Amino acid sequence: MTHTPTPPQADPGTPWAGSAIHEFLNHRAAAMGAGSWASPAREGTIPLTGGVPDPDALPTAALLEATRTVLAREAAPALEYGGNYGFPGLRELVAAEVDPQPGLGYGVDNVALTSGSAHALHNILDTFLNPGDTVVIETPAWGGIIRHLRGAGAVIEEVGMDEHGILIPELDELLTRLAAEGRRPKLIYTIPTFQNPMGITSTHERRKALIEVAARHRVLILEDDPYGELRFSGAPVPSILSLAGGDGVIRCGSFSKIIATGLRVGWIQASREYVDAVTRMRFDNGTSPFTSRIIAAYLEAGNHQPHLAKMRAIYKAKCDGMLSALEESCSGLATWTHPEGGFFIWLSYPASTDPKALAAAASDEGVQFIPGASFFAKGGGQHSLRLCFSYLSENVQAEAIRRLARALEKAR
Amino acid sequence: MTHTPTPPQADPGTPWAGSAIHEFLNHRAAAMGAGSWASPAREGTIPLTGGVPDPDALPTAALLEATRTVLAREAAPALEYGGNYGFPGLRELVAAEVDPQPGLGYGVDNVALTSGSAHALHNILDTFLNPGDTVVIETPAWGGIIRHLRGAGAVIEEVGMDEHGILIPELDELLTRLAAEGRRPKLIYTIPTFQNPMGITSTHERRKALIEVAARHRVLILEDDPYGELRFSGAPVPSILSLAGGDGVIRCGSFSKIIATGLRVGWIQASREYVDAVTRMRFDNGTSPFTSRIIAAYLEAGNHQPHLAKMRAIYKAKCDGMLSALEESCSGLATWTHPEGGFFIWLSYPASTDPKALAAAASDEGVQFIPGASFFAKGGGQHSLRLCFSYLSENVQAEAIRRLARALEKAR
Repeated sequence: MTHTPTPPQADPGTPWAGSAIHEFLNHRAAAMGAGSWASPAREGTIPLTGGVPDPDALPTAALLEATRTVLAREAAPALEYGGNYGFPGLRELVAAEVDPQPGLGYGVDNVALTSGSAHALHNILDTFLNPGDTVVIETPAWGGIIRHLRGAGAVIEEVGMDEHGILIPELDELLTRLAAEGRRPKLIYTIPTFQNPMGITSTHERRKALIEVAARHRVLILEDDPYGELRFSGAPVPSILSLAGGDGVIRCGSFSKIIATGLRVGWIQASREYVDAVTRMRFDNGTSPFTSRIIAAYLEAGNHQPHLAKMRAIYKAKCDGMLSALEESCSGLATWTHPEGGFFIWLSYPASTDPKALAAAASDEGVQFIPGASFFAKGGGQHSLRLCFSYLSENVQAEAIRRLARALEKAR
Repeated sequence: MTHTPTPPQADPGTPWAGSAIHEFLNHRAAAMGAGSWASPAREGTIPLTGGVPDPDALPTAALLEATRTVLAREAAPALEYGGNYGFPGLRELVAAEVDPQPGLGYGVDNVALTSGSAHALHNILDTFLNPGDTVVIETPAWGGIIRHLRGAGAVIEEVGMDEHGILIPELDELLTRLAAEGRRPKLIYTIPTFQNPMGITSTHERRKALIEVAARHRVLILEDDPYGELRFSGAPVPSILSLAGGDGVIRCGSFSKIIATGLRVGWIQASREYVDAVTRMRFDNGTSPFTSRIIAAYLEAGNHQPHLAKMRAIYKAKCDGMLSALEESCSGLATWTHPEGGFFIWLSYPASTDPKALAAAASDEGVQFIPGASFFAKGGGQHSLRLCFSYLSENVQAEAIRRLARALEKAR
């Protein structure tokens, strides 16, 4: 007779009989659903879902070399606690080279390292939001920020976008209406460059107008910019932080899309009092000095610009390929955005095409995408979807778009 | 004339004139002070402060080898997102080998990886505490948990300890009194093994009694055990989680003290519904798959038990050395605990010795320690201090204790 470990049994005689967890969850946790990761694709299905870098372009050899450098040169500080602000050498590199803010004179004190920009956002919300506080998000919005805000117990208000960015008159009207109700939002959340999910970039003029309206209503702008370095066409637009002269803006960046998502290192950049305030709300003993110093060594070895150039060429080719495939097979069935960088294309289809029929047809055809409704907190987006062109090879993507075209055809 | 970047100037005409941050901080952040890291020791001063591993014992070569293995074998998944629960391979190793819970049949679903156990605690408090909720902590308590709880807006209640662990009648009385006031605490926080700062270990009987009282009052136990594997004398005591049969206990562990603090990888282990609940309150896209897979490769290569054996021998020698030095020079001036593992000794001195005079004398003599008052949330601990024996070499520690003895002599 084999002897297997006995699973824990609820003893009906103990005070813990049955599940007790709902006595303990706080209000925010009690309201949270499960995470929003896309379910794994079925065998043979092509996923156009995850916003992750091209796996063949990961700088594996350079990271191994950087690890060797760090463990040979500075093993002890890399393997010990590094403080809540993070490794100063990398904070300096962020301010000086990776994410410089022209005219602001920023340095090490304006940057705090975080465990990715998703963690940066959590740290910021944990610092500024009381449950019930209002936050304005651009819509459609990255699904992650909707989950973040629900987890923080925030009240979400939405403002629409066109291909040039947030609709400023709509924002002004919203903030005026909220003020009349006695509600001043704490934050306006935006991804101004190669937006997730739309792929669009807010213009210089739209950014200036956003800064003016936000300042007039005394609302902070939360500028989330994980994709900005991945521009493969068009001219760069200054960050909202730099255009605002450093006032009223907190900026988040990340090494996830420019090196690797698995490192979990990002940053917050802002005027010093904001950096100090969010860091006081860190209770995790800081972001890993090991990974932070590996990234610093990778940058110091001159890998950054050549790798960016390589990534831009890869994503340009992939984006061009997907746009050509769309042109070829989806004209007349849908319209889509034309990004100048980043990972995403936003596709809109006519009201006459049924979203449920499209989902079923896409499943039959073997193609997966994120439905537009996932990017709306309060409903909407039924006749749209997000396509990601960063991950798969060009041939596979072209096949996926042909399948999508057949699905759109069936569902109309 | 040199031209330096102009720092951002508040324009008195803009809506952001002057500092605006206090309009935006939430209630919790507005109440937070700066972090509690010890100030750097002056030149020539010997610090007995930081609870960090022996720097010469860091397994640098084994970690480089593990990194090479990971980047050769599994670069793509190590450098991509790994989900909110963390790398399953390492979760399995934690449940099966690193932190097994006899009799509970735990596996991968009972473990979530966190960015160190400090982050685990933040994740747990973020899941269970509403502002104003009560938490009971053992006293003296690790200073970090006091900061965590203040950051969460918790009301702290304290329960005393002797050399066998938490004083159970005092706890029962406290919980009864709180119940009479309509306040049921959510959590009781304890480091039962090689406690920080006292260095003591709760006995088997005391753990059973703690479980009984907590269950009777329906309060969860938060078992924080970063030092448990570093036992160098005496017999191991089962975890509170395993003694409780998995009911009503959430356990935190960490690779910080058994491999390296700079990796920032720890875990939460509990019944599945608790693991699921805390993971739903993760918004950081998970702990780094890169560092998690490096640790898994390090464990798989057979480094764990030999490294633990080496660490135990080092810490035993250091602890014995510090206890001998105390015996030699501090007898009659103070009393102290006799740990069976971990990093810390707790020293108590008579009420006739003035704490301020001691601080001044210690500064003159060139020795630094953490004053006992740092480990109390509501005052107390004036005539005590924490000594850490993990970091410095034996000779340097012996000199530090001689300096401490002279300071105690001066201040009495």
